Parts: sequence; C-alpha cells; structure tokens
Amino acid sequence: MSNQTKVNKGRFFENFTLNEVITHATPRTLTSGDTALYIALTGARNSTHCNASFTHSLGYSSTPIDDLLAFNIAFGKTVPDISVNAIANLGYADVRFTRPIFVGDTLHTSSQVIGLKENSTGASGIVWVKSTTTNQQNIEVLSWVRWVMVKKNNLTATAPKVVIPNLPSSVSKAQLTIPSYFKAHDEISMVTGGQYFWGDYEVGERIDHVAGATINPAEHTLATRLYQNNAHLHFDDHLMKKSHYGQRLVYGGVVISLCRALSYEGLENALTILAINAGTHANPSFAGDTIYCATEVIDRHALNDRTDMGALRLRMVGIKNMLPSQLSEFKSGEKYHPNVVLDLDYTVAMPLRGN
Amino acid sequence: MSNQTKVNKGRFFENFTLNEVITHATPRTLTSGDTALYIALTGARNSTHCNASFTHSLGYSSTPIDDLLAFNIAFGKTVPDISVNAIANLGYADVRFTRPIFVGDTLHTSSQVIGLKENSTGASGIVWVKSTTTNQQNIEVLSWVRWVMVKKNNLTATAPKVVIPNLPSSVSKAQLTIPSYFKAHDEISMVTGGQYFWGDYEVGERIDHVAGATINPAEHTLATRLYQNNAHLHFDDHLMKKSHYGQRLVYGGVVISLCRALSYEGLENALTILAINAGTHANPSFAGDTIYCATEVIDRHALNDRTDMGALRLRMVGIKNMLPSQLSEFKSGEKYHPNVVLDLDYTVAMPLRGN
Amino acid sequence: MSNQTKVNKGRFFENFTLNEVITHATPRTLTSGDTALYIALTGARNSTHCNASFTHSLGYSSTPIDDLLAFNIAFGKTVPDISVNAIANLGYADVRFTRPIFVGDTLHTSSQVIGLKENSTGASGIVWVKSTTTNQQNIEVLSWVRWVMVKKNNLTATAPKVVIPNLPSSVSKAQLTIPSYFKAHDEISMVTGGQYFWGDYEVGERIDHVAGATINPAEHTLATRLYQNNAHLHFDDHLMKKSHYGQRLVYGGVVISLCRALSYEGLENALTILAINAGTHANPSFAGDTIYCATEVIDRHALNDRTDMGALRLRMVGIKNMLPSQLSEFKSGEKYHPNVVLDLDYTVAMPLRGN
Repeated sequence: MSNQTKVNKGRFFENFTLNEVITHATPRTLTSGDTALYIALTGARNSTHCNASFTHSLGYSSTPIDDLLAFNIAFGKTVPDISVNAIANLGYADVRFTRPIFVGDTLHTSSQVIGLKENSTGASGIVWVKSTTTNQQNIEVLSWVRWVMVKKNNLTATAPKVVIPNLPSSVSKAQLTIPSYFKAHDEISMVTGGQYFWGDYEVGERIDHVAGATINPAEHTLATRLYQNNAHLHFDDHLMKKSHYGQRLVYGGVVISLCRALSYEGLENALTILAINAGTHANPSFAGDTIYCATEVIDRHALNDRTDMGALRLRMVGIKNMLPSQLSEFKSGEKYHPNVVLDLDYTVAMPLRGN
Repeated sequence: MSNQTKVNKGRFFENFTLNEVITHATPRTLTSGDTALYIALTGARNSTHCNASFTHSLGYSSTPIDDLLAFNIAFGKTVPDISVNAIANLGYADVRFTRPIFVGDTLHTSSQVIGLKENSTGASGIVWVKSTTTNQQNIEVLSWVRWVMVKKNNLTATAPKVVIPNLPSSVSKAQLTIPSYFKAHDEISMVTGGQYFWGDYEVGERIDHVAGATINPAEHTLATRLYQNNAHLHFDDHLMKKSHYGQRLVYGGVVISLCRALSYEGLENALTILAINAGTHANPSFAGDTIYCATEVIDRHALNDRTDMGALRLRMVGIKNMLPSQLSEFKSGEKYHPNVVLDLDYTVAMPLRGN
Repeated sequence: MSNQTKVNKGRFFENFTLNEVITHATPRTLTSGDTALYIALTGARNSTHCNASFTHSLGYSSTPIDDLLAFNIAFGKTVPDISVNAIANLGYADVRFTRPIFVGDTLHTSSQVIGLKENSTGASGIVWVKSTTTNQQNIEVLSWVRWVMVKKNNLTATAPKVVIPNLPSSVSKAQLTIPSYFKAHDEISMVTGGQYFWGDYEVGERIDHVAGATINPAEHTLATRLYQNNAHLHFDDHLMKKSHYGQRLVYGGVVISLCRALSYEGLENALTILAINAGTHANPSFAGDTIYCATEVIDRHALNDRTDMGALRLRMVGIKNMLPSQLSEFKSGEKYHPNVVLDLDYTVAMPLRGN
C-alpha cells in the first residue's frame, strides 16, 4: 500500500477563514506535578503559587497555579492548529488573566480568527487570533490575542480580504479582575521578603535585576513539552541544523517565564499578573544563552474598588549574554538591540503598604 | 579493616535457575508528579492520561496512568535482579496491560525464569523471564516476557539444560482486556483532535509521522531515573567512555515512550495500549540522536463483545537522524537499517465512528 | 529617571550581627511533584519515601518526604540572606532531622547568627548560623548549623568581636529522634532488597559502592531551582565563565543527594536519616563530572528505648571521575585527594534483624 498519511500537518495561511472558531484538541488537567516542574524549570518563588499557608491567609481556598504556567499550557493547545507552520510569532495583546486556576482544573482552549493579511510576496500571511481558555465548568479563565506569520502551502490560493483587528494598547482597567475573596494583609513582607509596596514604585523607574540564568538544552525542551507545545523548531535538531538558525529555537514562553522568575528581587510583592498588554520576542534565544532581565515602571494606578492593592504596569525586558546595566537603551528607533530577546508590557497587582 | 563489600552486584548467568521466582525490591507508589514528568519527558498528549473531564466521560473514576509510564516503572524494578549485568536486552513478548493503573497505586513486580540457554562461547547466556506486576491489592495489572543476554561471572560454571520457552507471536485476543465501565462516545474527536476511527485504518497502511525529537542528555537520564532503572550504562559516562560505544546508552524504554508520543498525529484516537506483542531495540540510541517514527497497520480486529471500540495491531518503527519518508524498508532480510532503533508490534483500542 | 534599584543584593560580612535572627522569605509547601522530581533528579529508591504501602506498614499515616529533599528545600530558603555573597560554604554541623515532613507541609526557615570572625585580609569573614525549620503548625522539623565565608562590601567596616561557636562533633544521641509510631518489622528485606541489618555492620568497615552518575548540566540546575536556591554561581554561565572556575559550580546539596542515592546498594535498610554530624564539600563539582561514593562505618550504637532499630554513624565520601576502589585514602593529612568532593558524617536508623 502507498505511503498514504493520516498525519494532520496543521493549517497554512490559506486554510484560515475570518471569524471561524477553532476548538483546540487535548484539553489538559493541571496537577501538583506541573507546579513542581514549573519551579524546577524557572526558579519561580512567588508565594502566591507555592505557599499554601500564605494563599489561605490571602483568602484562597487552595493555591492558584502560576499565571504564566497556566498561560503557557493554554497557549500550547493552540500550536497544532495555529502556529505549527508559523514562520514567526509576531506579538501578543490583550492577555487577560480573568480567574485564578487551580490544581485539578481542566483547561479547554478555542481560537477565533479575527484578522488576516497576506504578505506582498504571496508566500505567507499574518493571522490574528483571539484565544479563550475555559475551565471544566465552562467558565472563562484566560484570553489573549496573538498574531503569527504563517506560510502558504498553495501559492496560487487567492489572498483573503485584508482585515486588521483594532487591538487595545493595553487591557482596559475595567478588565483587570481580582477575586473579591483575595485580600492583601500586613504580613506580606515577612513572606515574600519584599520591602517595597505599590506606592514605592515611580513611573519611569527602572530596575536592573541581577540574577541571570543560562538555558540548558534539556530545560527549554522539558518546559515546552510540559506545555504540550509541539512546534517542531523547539525539538528537532536534525531539522533545525538545516535552518538558517543552525539549531533549535527556545519557545518564547520559556523566556517570558524565566524573566518573570529572574525579576523576583525588586518585585517580590507583585502577587499576581492581571494582564499582558503587549509582548514581542525581539530576537531569538538558543540553548546556551544566559538570560537577564530589567523592569521599567510604565504606570501605577488604582484598581477598581480596592484599597488593599493597586496596579503596576511594567515593562519586562529580557536580555541575553549581557548585563542589563550595560544597556541604557533597549531599542534604537524601531530596531531592538541584538541582545534584547523580550519586550513585554504587563500589569501586576501589588499591595499597598499597611493593610 | 579490609575493603569488604555488602554491595549486591546483581545476578550473572550462572545464578539463574529455571522456574525460580524473584521478588523485586522497592515497590513504588505512583504520584501526579510522575504523570507531569512523563509529559515533560516525552511530550505525551493522549487525553486518556491527562484530561480528567475526558476520562470521567469515558467511565473512569480517576485518570489512568499512561500505559508506558506504568510499564517503564514496573520494568525498572526488574533491572537490579535481571539485567544489571546484561550485555543486551534482546526482546519483549506477550506484554499484557491487564488493568488500568492510577495515581496512588503501588506497583510490586516479580519475575519467573522461564528459559535458559548458554551461548556457545561459554561466556554468557540468554535468560527468559516472565515478569508480573500487581497493585497494592495484589491484583495483576501488567505482565510481560523479556529475554536478555547476561554475562557469566564464573566461566567454569556448568551450562544449564537448554529451555527455550514457547512464546506467542502476539498476545491472544482473549487477553486483550478493557474495563467494562470504559465506553467510547461521540465526542472523542473533539477532545483528541483525531478524525480517524477504527474502520478508517487499512491493514498494510503506513503512516510516516512528521514530528521528531532530539534526545538531550538530561532527558533520558531523568526519565530512566524516574523509572528507578539503575543500569549503569545509562548513567555512568566515566565507565561508558571506555566501552566500545564511547558514551552512555539511552534506555530502550525512553525510545518506546518517545515514539508513542511522536506518533500522536495520525493515531490520535488510539485511546489505550492493550498489548505489546513483540519488540526489539534494533540499534542503540545516544544523546544527540533525533528520533522519528513510522507506523504500519498490521491487523484490525474486533474486541470481544465491544461494539464501541476495536483493536488495531500496529508496528511502531523508531528511526534516528533520518526522516521516515527517506526509508522505504526498515529491514533488509534479517538485518535492520542502521538508523532503525526500534521495531515494536503493539495493539491499541480505537473507537468505532459514531458511538 | 536614574537607574535606581530596588534589588536586594543580600548581606555582606559587615551586615551580620551576633545573635540576630533572620526570618527567611518564601516559605514553601511540598507537593507530590517535588517527590517525583527528586526521584528523577537523584535516582533515590529508599522505600521510606516512595512506597505508601510500606510506610503504612511502618506506622506512618502518609509517606514522609525524603530527608535530603526536605533539607535542600529548607536550606534553599537561607541562601538569599546568608550565602548569596558567599565565597565558600565551609561546613555543616549538628543537622537534626527532628520530625518527619509530609506532602502538604509548608516549611518556614529562620537563622540565628551564632559566630563571626573577620579574616586577616579584611576582605571577608566567616559567619556561623544556626538555622531552624518549622512546619505550618510552628513545630520544629529540622535544624542545622553551617558556616560560610562571606565577602565584605565596605572594606573599612570595623571587624566584629571574634566569636567562634562551640559545635558538637556529632548530634548528641539524645537528639536522635524517631516517632513512637514508626516501628520496623520482619518484611523489610522483601521491600528494600537489603540483606544486611544493624548488627551486620562493623565499625571500621568500608563499602565501595559501584554505581556512578554523571551530572548533566540541566540536572543540577533543575534540582537547585526546585530547592529555590538562587545562588548565581549555579545558574549564570555568562558570569561564571569569567570566574577562576570558568564555568558554573554544582550546588553541594546536589552532590549529597546523589551520593545518598548511589550508596543504596549496601545500605538498603538505612530507612531514615537521623542526623548529619558534620559535612564538607572537599572540592567543587561541575557538570560532566561522574560521581561515585564510598561509605565507612564510624559507629554503631543503640537508639534510646528502641529494640527494633539502632543507629549507624556513617562517613559518606563522594569521589569524582575515579572509582572508590582506586582510592585507599581520601585525605592525606589535612588535604583531601583532588577527586574527593564530599566528606559527610551522618547517622541513620537501621532495623535490627528479626523484628
């Protein structure tokens, strides 16, 4: 019999239709094994996600999963349908951490195509999707927009009507949600080790974090597999040796998680991520790169009716093989410094002093 | 005092007696940490083992452990007694996945010597063992036969009577067991992402899976240690540098698990493994190898009284550093292509369309 | 705005004050994910920590966490305050495993400064701390003394009064605690695979363990991150390439855990660690090193009122890239052989034959 194949090779640019909704396969139940692996893979120390006594004291009935662990697992589900044939992951916007996620929750993700634009070469195009993750009770827990450049398979396919979605420059303040049971209290500093509270951060301030982490080959592949992200370019060295990179690429979510963990000193009281407003993988990362991180305070604002916590909007910049202190500017015009690997605009909840 | 040692160095060929039963030490309790690590180490996405909502819908009261994770852990227990002095793991037969295994179960394994044949050189011999794994309620959950070539320590020891067991070419159909509570249903495709059901696979059909995975050094050692398999040749580079391989060998179970995960696209609805009929590690694998996989459909048959699921007998071929599509034949006569690392004949349960 | 930083850079020698108590941040809740990772990272097979049926038979209501996993996690908490600016981790003493620790427990650690001595160069000094770990019920579960050499930041700071604590050469026998519910029984050999009991070990006896394990780069970093030990010299290769080591150092606790696992054959019935009397990292370890282990029996003594278990005091010596059998002496005078990486004096509980 012939070499007929049943293998789903994923969608190409011409296979996406505006407004269609794609239900992604293999929903995933989270376990305490995932949380331990996330600590081992990133060095995360945020007490909101690894200290049951503390989370009970904050009002949680159990310890919520790290925001970025949940995001990476939810994101992984979209890869076989959206980005397995992607040339580049161009950006994120409007990432909303709507509800806490717990061990035992099963995450289901679907995506709607909200924008399409064929490139002038006719060989590829940009696809915008809004992805939504619900838990086993069909309650939305996460949503985000991303856009990717995807190859065409049939080069003669007609270009779709150009639709570029109107994306917010940040998640709207009304969408920054904190459960009503979650309350900050006076002893946070004792637990987190952080001496700085919401009012201590000044807009424009920059924090150069001192910790660095070298990415070992097995670390990024273990993390990416834990997220069940199956994009070949992270795993298949035989394939990637022939690419112009000459080697496997590190999944961008690995760099985001690493930077969040590396920025612990200086942001100890950033209890939870409320939103990612925008994000770009400025340059690729490879095994062997040492990642450092700098944070800039973009905005500081109140949170709805809360008197115990406020929002800080932060710029988290990932830098490879160079100390943040050696880099006064991350971008020159539109062009990123070649050692900048991540530029992420996100919003955290930070307690006010004296609650 | 002298360098007296209490170290158990394991059995040599002359230490095995026909029919003796060896109770293996260190029974092991399975945890949700094992299941998360298995996903991180293999990229497994099979919903039967990582989606509690789905497994409840199939009739399970909790999510069963991945068949191959259980097999590898059960197998690991036999290593200190059976194969720590093995020269080669020659083959598997009659591997029966008798009952589902769950987080919290404690696996006990024992082995009976069912065959012995000294090699003509007098320096080693082949030992056949039938191993059986029971859970904490003393109920059999797994069994298998394997045969290994083991060194002699005392070269003057008399050769035992030659007994070569009569092994079935496949697990008998009567032994393919599915719990009565486990029922396939209509929404499987939505969960697994697979569009093909039992009736869609033709005997003789071959599927060349496109995913590949490069084995990083830490990945195979972490997996092998998770299985508490302590064979030195996987861990001790100082020792193995002096061997004719010049480096550590990857444990064969790592390759089996990787191939199963790499063959997900094309076999999405293969919900559970019922049997491994036969298996051979055709060539060794080393860290740095990129593993690919091809599947051939060997047989398709009904399953006892089931109308919701049938059996597919599959040949899973692992290939290193070469795309399956570049290899029309895996074997020439009795000789495997040097890039073929695994030839495994196994049987899965696959739902019928429209249940 | 200027590059003002909120990053806590840790204490220098002049920042330590005699008798002060430092409460360490980020208490940590243990999960079954930690226990699975510990097995994958070390190859530990001790049934006391991975076999629920066995631990129930010993009288435990749930399976206790591996002693050294708990120690490493508790120790990790002290790093940001005590040793992030350390030049060398000089030694351990009086390490008491006071109470069993279980999945779900949250460990809090604090340290008291019990000794200070500035070095004659005036550029650094030695700090002695006694660290104590309590669980979520504020019950002490672990304590230890260690001393580290720490850099001065302000070289003109006045030297403190020299106080060198009086440390016991071993944990006192009265402090070796076993829960009253924990009882050894007759079937231990069946479970552990060990044929030797307390009375079978002779003072002065040496056991050369045969297993070796090569440390892969990702393995030591995953372990160290799991312990949330953030000392830069384990993670930051960009930094360490400029150090006189030219590369990252392996955290000493990784070597201790590896040696304990490698010494399983010969010490199978060493059910639990009661104390670490003294410990030294004799030489540094690096990724790529293969670790072997030898054990010497230092003492054998009764345990309080127990008739089912006795104490063995053991010397565990870690050796890199050389078989223990090639090394008749580990030290010549005060100088360690360059391949010796660990010299640890510890005490285990070992059952008596026939209980």
